[in-house]
Amino acid sequence: MRREMLFSGFGGQGVILASVIVGRAAAVYEGLYAVQTQAYGPESRGGASKAEVVISDEPIDYPKALSPDCAVFFSQEAYDKYLGLVKEGGIAIVEKDLVPHRRPELEEKLRVYALPLTEIAEETTGLSLTMNILTVGLLTKLSEILTEESIEKAVLDAVPRGTEQLNLKALRKGFELGEKARKGEL
Amino acid sequence: MRREMLFSGFGGQGVILASVIVGRAAAVYEGLYAVQTQAYGPESRGGASKAEVVISDEPIDYPKALSPDCAVFFSQEAYDKYLGLVKEGGIAIVEKDLVPHRRPELEEKLRVYALPLTEIAEETTGLSLTMNILTVGLLTKLSEILTEESIEKAVLDAVPRGTEQLNLKALRKGFELGEKARKGEL
Repeated sequence: MRREMLFSGFGGQGVILASVIVGRAAAVYEGLYAVQTQAYGPESRGGASKAEVVISDEPIDYPKALSPDCAVFFSQEAYDKYLGLVKEGGIAIVEKDLVPHRRPELEEKLRVYALPLTEIAEETTGLSLTMNILTVGLLTKLSEILTEESIEKAVLDAVPRGTEQLNLKALRKGFELGEKARKGEL
Repeated sequence: MRREMLFSGFGGQGVILASVIVGRAAAVYEGLYAVQTQAYGPESRGGASKAEVVISDEPIDYPKALSPDCAVFFSQEAYDKYLGLVKEGGIAIVEKDLVPHRRPELEEKLRVYALPLTEIAEETTGLSLTMNILTVGLLTKLSEILTEESIEKAVLDAVPRGTEQLNLKALRKGFELGEKARKGEL
């Protein structure tokens, strides 16, 4: 079992924190192996941000996500650049309002969930910043690799002190959306 | 030019944030390539924490730090486990109070700087938590890969809002210690 996940967007959206949380949950609370990576190149100066997690039930030799099973796109630039990498039949979560130009010919081979994630986060917690944690919740339910309990613990480990309740609220809203999405109710 | 750095300790000491800052400074503010990695295995459940950064002037094929040029040890367990990996002639920064049992036979091949980093951070900012950022400052001066300006910008990008001044103070104390260490005044 090897699963690759990609989080992408621009700086300040918390894609690194989201992927650190997923990696910790897998390793510390599920007993799996995980490698979490950020690769920065010249494109980082444009503000593009990308974080990867590879999860496996055995030690991980190759830590890059070459063909993600599951990917999150928080910006148009990220979507344009990385959507084509997602494995056929894989999951793509798209921040609908931040990705106005879509590629139906690529999306038809994927399970795409496009939602106004920032807006939903703001409605749920009053803070649009919690969008990354809400997305982790959504991803958890859709990808079915990690349990809600593991992810909740990893969120509590990682978020700044004083923001725990707010982030849990965002996370649980993500679980709820993920549950609906799986049932085809979104 | 390829440089490998390792940050190690236990959970909550901010080793991931420290290495994210170094990676961002290299890529976003110095125009280099950088890959920043956390690998988690069963040992993560013991609370061990390890983060790596590889910096290069060309794209990085192999993202792991197999033989760090520069390493930071914030716990005895981390020191016991990883000190032997550091390249001959490389730099080892040791949190003196948290690593009571040292290995002189390994240290003699390295440039070792052992300081009560937590205590110094607490004296400098009132918050022992800022120890990771102070260490980034120390490392910056000792490793001579990145400029003070780049690291300052990357710290400001990464630390929680409201803690910028505190963290800059810790960082600059680290620069000062690094400067003294280079002159053999520590």
